[in-house]
Amino acid sequence: MAVNNNQKAVVLLSGGLDSSTVLAIAVSEGYEVTALSFRYGQNHAHETDQATKIAKKFGVGDHTIIDIDLSIFGNSALTGQFEVPKTINMAALSEDIPITYVPARNTIFLSYALAMAEVREASIVMLGVNALDYSGYPDCRPEYVESFEEMANLATKRAVEGNSLKIVAPLLHLTKAQIIARGMALGVDYSMTTSCYDPDISNRACGSCDACRLRLRGFQENKMIDPAEYQ
Amino acid sequence: MAVNNNQKAVVLLSGGLDSSTVLAIAVSEGYEVTALSFRYGQNHAHETDQATKIAKKFGVGDHTIIDIDLSIFGNSALTGQFEVPKTINMAALSEDIPITYVPARNTIFLSYALAMAEVREASIVMLGVNALDYSGYPDCRPEYVESFEEMANLATKRAVEGNSLKIVAPLLHLTKAQIIARGMALGVDYSMTTSCYDPDISNRACGSCDACRLRLRGFQENKMIDPAEYQ
Repeated sequence: MAVNNNQKAVVLLSGGLDSSTVLAIAVSEGYEVTALSFRYGQNHAHETDQATKIAKKFGVGDHTIIDIDLSIFGNSALTGQFEVPKTINMAALSEDIPITYVPARNTIFLSYALAMAEVREASIVMLGVNALDYSGYPDCRPEYVESFEEMANLATKRAVEGNSLKIVAPLLHLTKAQIIARGMALGVDYSMTTSCYDPDISNRACGSCDACRLRLRGFQENKMIDPAEYQ
Repeated sequence: MAVNNNQKAVVLLSGGLDSSTVLAIAVSEGYEVTALSFRYGQNHAHETDQATKIAKKFGVGDHTIIDIDLSIFGNSALTGQFEVPKTINMAALSEDIPITYVPARNTIFLSYALAMAEVREASIVMLGVNALDYSGYPDCRPEYVESFEEMANLATKRAVEGNSLKIVAPLLHLTKAQIIARGMALGVDYSMTTSCYDPDISNRACGSCDACRLRLRGFQENKMIDPAEYQ
């Protein structure tokens, strides 16, 4: 599998289930990985500590955490303005844009990744967006990722000099169960990952927000027990 | 001219000559303006103070300054890693990517503007990039701006709900002399603007960096004296 030796990848690593799986995929494919995480006023800020542990576990020494203040844009449950909903019907998950949407979040994250890719001379940026479970997020759709890639290849000195950049979302069309199966095969320790939008002060998952429900269902479909700590 | 009453615009305002002119254009066209500035470790950080004064002068009460740390990406004279060059031949200015290039800077700035446009429900983002004097910057070219607009219209909840966003660079095809003439006609006080990449501690312009030379030539071509303070 190590077909990409000597190629560099920037991986957006939140410390959650999806991005940890992407990190494992990048490493398994032989990329020299730069991991990039963000502290953006999210309620579950301890994600970045977990991202650090996960990067270390996969032997990624190049891990940068960038502080950005998305909270100035307000209006999202994820940055603390209002309560994370616990009553959503699972069947309705794909229909509306979730209350946890943060304006232009993935565009801001990918813009920093683009800068980092230029500095590190990386040929690929990988991120854990997924179109199936959360099609409600506009910046998790395939057409968005493709469009960002087109823009990125016009944006930098490195691109103008003939080094194209791929923006790859390897989980885009996988179900949560498929993502978990893939990660398990690659040695991801999911007890180290967080998904909950509303953990308690001991960082134990609530078990009832959208993210917890999707995750628990993914493990159930694999006939496995989620190793994360729940309240 | 006030044809855009009740429409909102986000204007990227660095406090320099170009972006101050763009602010004047946005106000003259009737937009309700949100100005957005960045502190990103640039040597000429007092630009943001000037941006505040310029916003105030044009009656723009909604002005946000965002702290971002581009210096982690290194490799640009503008963020202090090495000396601003003073020996460039004016004729060569358009041929190479300047040493003052900052990786993915406009993409990062526009990404924040995209988020702000969503929160403010703006229909347009305006920025002062220019393809003539600085064609060396990849993220100042028309094809880049168009591509960012395409991506932006796939990226947000607001776009998905049918509210398209325009990314407009009104100075894109103007010479520096034409920009200055346009701004003077709209009442821009260019003594309030900074262009120098390497001012002294009293914020007086050096007169010899690329930005100073282009600016001085622009005033000369208008048969005017640049009102900025020089060393």
